[in-house]
Amino acid sequence: MRDQAFTDDFRAQFDLLLRLRRDVRRFRKDAIDEAVLTRCLDAFQLAPSVGLSEPWRVIRVESEVARDAALKNFQTANEQALQGYSGEKAHLYSQLKLSGMQDAPVQLAVFCDDATDKGQGLGAGTMPEMRRYSVVSAITLFWLTLRTEGLGLGWVSILDPEQMAHDLNVPENWRLIGYFCVGWPEVQSDTPELQQAGWEYREDKLPIEVR
Amino acid sequence: MRDQAFTDDFRAQFDLLLRLRRDVRRFRKDAIDEAVLTRCLDAFQLAPSVGLSEPWRVIRVESEVARDAALKNFQTANEQALQGYSGEKAHLYSQLKLSGMQDAPVQLAVFCDDATDKGQGLGAGTMPEMRRYSVVSAITLFWLTLRTEGLGLGWVSILDPEQMAHDLNVPENWRLIGYFCVGWPEVQSDTPELQQAGWEYREDKLPIEVR
Repeated sequence: MRDQAFTDDFRAQFDLLLRLRRDVRRFRKDAIDEAVLTRCLDAFQLAPSVGLSEPWRVIRVESEVARDAALKNFQTANEQALQGYSGEKAHLYSQLKLSGMQDAPVQLAVFCDDATDKGQGLGAGTMPEMRRYSVVSAITLFWLTLRTEGLGLGWVSILDPEQMAHDLNVPENWRLIGYFCVGWPEVQSDTPELQQAGWEYREDKLPIEVR
Repeated sequence: MRDQAFTDDFRAQFDLLLRLRRDVRRFRKDAIDEAVLTRCLDAFQLAPSVGLSEPWRVIRVESEVARDAALKNFQTANEQALQGYSGEKAHLYSQLKLSGMQDAPVQLAVFCDDATDKGQGLGAGTMPEMRRYSVVSAITLFWLTLRTEGLGLGWVSILDPEQMAHDLNVPENWRLIGYFCVGWPEVQSDTPELQQAGWEYREDKLPIEVR
């Protein structure tokens, strides 16, 4: 195929896309057009995967019972996490909004099939965690694609992954990578919400060591 | 800040970027301009990270001794991996080019600091692997940014991660996420090299289950 060079203008817009990607926890309740959602989910199939194993497994969590179980899972884990902080940090933690599970119109549980035969194990012999990393890459592409459409994603990891696998009744070798809230963000920002809240700060520069 | 909407034209170019991202194993030996490389590495700091922990640790592997150790590590792991296949699959495996370590002008070993205090553990209580996933997200952004500049990345995972950590003399709690070859690709393609070689095939569509 012909060489495709990207323009300076595209690079500038792409940089803006990375800057405006947020981990969103505050969603409007408006529905998402199914065609737009499908277009974004198509990004999974363009992701790198070790040995072309494509180990991602996506479950759309729709029913009231499944959503209630996921929310309860988060709430329990979040209460336990709060116990790990004290003083001012505990107070700050208790005020953070750490999931949009009560508002996001679309919610996905994404797993890695650790036992897939696809790819015949290539590249995953010494580092079997590569399959899970492939799923994370796919989620990252999905996340950026959502943002190009004005949509936001929130990654919820304050969860008991075994409980989630049990509640969703998934095969034994599937490991939860994350639970994802998808919807229209209430606000747009180039600053992480945890930084705005004073929890932690972003470094400006990446330190690089040389060997 | 003002709402930023991305255009249909941008979305089409972004889709092309995802389609032309490859795991590159065949590089030209031309050097990379340091300013361009730095611009691409800046993408790390725009990545999502659990609790804003920014656990990525990047080592540029430059010296002959460090590169020789990394190459030997790969060659040993690759020979062992070959032993796991037989017949036609073994023959095919032996013909695959699985790293560009002998050509790529820039090589990076990327680790996760599993013990970082940054972020105070937020979001990583029940799923401490979230720190490693944050590093994978950062690498994915770096990968795409390289591609916007015409550069390619190859992810090498056929490695003994403990040996790599030892050879590069990194702190005890750093875990290897991957070894990355960066350079100018010999060719551009929208088809994974493993598919071109007949090892494995990409699925067209993402199956989604509903609960």
